[in-house]
This record gives sequence, C-alpha cells and structure tokens, in this order.
Amino acid sequence: MTTIKIPAEIRYNEQGLIPAILQDETSRDVLMVAWMNQEALSITLETGFAHFWSRSRQALWKKGETSGNLMAVKQIWVDCDADVLLLMVEASGAACHTGAITCFYRRIEEMA
Amino acid sequence: MTTIKIPAEIRYNEQGLIPAILQDETSRDVLMVAWMNQEALSITLETGFAHFWSRSRQALWKKGETSGNLMAVKQIWVDCDADVLLLMVEASGAACHTGAITCFYRRIEEMA
Repeated sequence: MTTIKIPAEIRYNEQGLIPAILQDETSRDVLMVAWMNQEALSITLETGFAHFWSRSRQALWKKGETSGNLMAVKQIWVDCDADVLLLMVEASGAACHTGAITCFYRRIEEMA
Repeated sequence: MTTIKIPAEIRYNEQGLIPAILQDETSRDVLMVAWMNQEALSITLETGFAHFWSRSRQALWKKGETSGNLMAVKQIWVDCDADVLLLMVEASGAACHTGAITCFYRRIEEMA
C-alpha cells in the first residue's frame, strides 16, 4: 500500500468538507457529487475506493458498502483554487441510490 | 427567446446557492465548478450563456465577460436530490483563469 500525502493547499470549507465530483473514466459521465473531509480523502487515497462524509448521518461512509456498487478511484484532480476534487473512477454499478447509472438523470428543461 | 421555468424542487443551500459543474459536451472534460443563485440560473436559462453568483464579490457574473471565453449552455441536468447542477457546455475558450482548458489541471497524487 502506498501512502499518499494530502497536499497542504487543499481547502476545506468552514465545516471541514470539500465537494468531490465522481466521473466515470470510461464513459466520461459525471456520476455524482458527495462531500469529503480530510479523513475520507485520506482513506480514499489509501484504499483506492471512494469514501465520503455523510452530512445527514455525520459519519464516514464507503460508497457502495451496502449496494456493492463500489467506486475504484483511478485519479484525483483538484481545481485551481483547491476547493473542489474530481475523482476519475471505475464503477462496479449504478452510482445513484435510485438505481440510475448517474445521479444526473433529469434535464431541467424537461422538468418544469 | 424561450422562457424556461425553474423547477420548484431545485434545492439551494442556506446561502441560496447551488453548485454548478460545467462539462464540455464535446471533449467531456469537467471544466469548472461555480455557484448559482436563482437569478443566475434564470438568466442562464434565458440567455443560453452560463451566469454565476460570485461569493467573493457578492455579484452576478457572466462567465467569460472579461476573457471572452463564454460558455454556451446546451443542457442542464440536476442530480437525484436536486442540490447540484450539471451544465453541458460549448466553450469559447479556456475555462480557468490561469488559461488552462479546465480548472482541474493538477493531480493530487503528483502534488505532495
């Protein structure tokens, strides 16, 4: 196991969280957005599987722990002001709790 | 000009903002993330060009107004819990203020 040091410039918000976008590295679909704290990011880097911080449950969670739809993290990118992460992933199954491949399955222009 | 009604279920945060991911519809690169309030979303839908709310300047801004790198919005998607937007765009130029095509130009694994 390789230990990857978290770059010091990563900027968490006032709750100690940073949003993480998951993008499927093959289909290039944007799958979902969830929040990470420093621990979630650290465990993600160590294990190679996406972990997040649940704001509603106030707990660390491994994506797909219940559904089996794990997200293997291939690359992590950070934006210019270091307050958003982009995770390139290989998905074992649907990202969305509804069973949809991506959480972004509704077009706003068709909802009104 | 078509007026598109903003779906009532869009969920803004306690500051009245929602994060918007911009994805290039051709390259499928994730370009940037910025914040919208209801007015920014409404003007984006009306004009077809991405507008955001600047938290630092507390002002509405049209992406690319200064640089000329406008973002023509082709589709807007919303995620399952309606608190993140995904804008599929056609970019006139670099998304990042650094001149990079995408704001996500640094890999975390290479930064430490």
